[in-house]
Amino acid sequence: MSVLIMTANGFEDTELLCPLYRFQEEGLRVDVCAPTKGDLRGKHGYTVTANLSLSEARSEDYQVLYIPGGKAPEELRRLPEALKLVRDFQNSKKLIVAICHGPLVLVSAGILRGRRATGYPKIAEELKAAGVNYQDHEVVVDRNIITSRRPRDLPALMKTVIENLKAPDFP
Amino acid sequence: MSVLIMTANGFEDTELLCPLYRFQEEGLRVDVCAPTKGDLRGKHGYTVTANLSLSEARSEDYQVLYIPGGKAPEELRRLPEALKLVRDFQNSKKLIVAICHGPLVLVSAGILRGRRATGYPKIAEELKAAGVNYQDHEVVVDRNIITSRRPRDLPALMKTVIENLKAPDFP
Repeated sequence: MSVLIMTANGFEDTELLCPLYRFQEEGLRVDVCAPTKGDLRGKHGYTVTANLSLSEARSEDYQVLYIPGGKAPEELRRLPEALKLVRDFQNSKKLIVAICHGPLVLVSAGILRGRRATGYPKIAEELKAAGVNYQDHEVVVDRNIITSRRPRDLPALMKTVIENLKAPDFP
Repeated sequence: MSVLIMTANGFEDTELLCPLYRFQEEGLRVDVCAPTKGDLRGKHGYTVTANLSLSEARSEDYQVLYIPGGKAPEELRRLPEALKLVRDFQNSKKLIVAICHGPLVLVSAGILRGRRATGYPKIAEELKAAGVNYQDHEVVVDRNIITSRRPRDLPALMKTVIENLKAPDFP
């Protein structure tokens, strides 16, 4: 089973690294895609290498898309190849996970209208304006889309995501 | 079940935060102790609150001691109350986990001589000089002591630690 992390420079370091390590602990293969292949720098200075560009990544190769927060989502949401990739995951009903500012990419891809979701409290108004049923919970699951608010929600988020991956009816 | 994280200012941020979140995901209570109670700052700028001072923490209240790396272990290893706490965990054969520079605290507490262990490659010579059977593996288990080298070993370390916690003969 494989996970695609979609991010860019300015990612929230723990929101990328802790789930990356957690997925690897579970034996999953994890790729990282970004606007340009190569080294990315997080808000707190950690370096992560994107082994794929957005245009190289293909949803067929993965069961899960994970979008961490930080400043990266504001860049991603303006890029047609990022939004196309999100829609490809959505069209094949794969698991899509986003935390913090990550749900903004889902809004721009047009897949969050009418759905229950959460995100960093500062983006709550934008989510509501985009027709999202915003819920101030640590994790919100609406069918194949799982969202979360902030780094300290990661324990609850990862528990939910791993349980979903292990569910007998997944994917 | 409860975990005590022993650290100080200058901790390696992901080595503290990713296991903290992982233990919480598992439903464990986690306390953080440091030379002084209150906010600590990691090498990369994350803030973690120590809710206990070293002298307040008691080994009886925990099943696991976890010592992350960074600059913190160099401070801890000079403090008699830190070394006493390590020895208290060791005397009751509880699980002791250390990564990166963390094993230096175990050396100063005098509990690593003659044991198999690992740690950040730069401390290998000091560990060997202290009578440790140093092994360059991502995780080394020697009875109740589990050691690891660096952040990217966290998936293997946490898999091993969680498996040990869930083993029928634990503690």
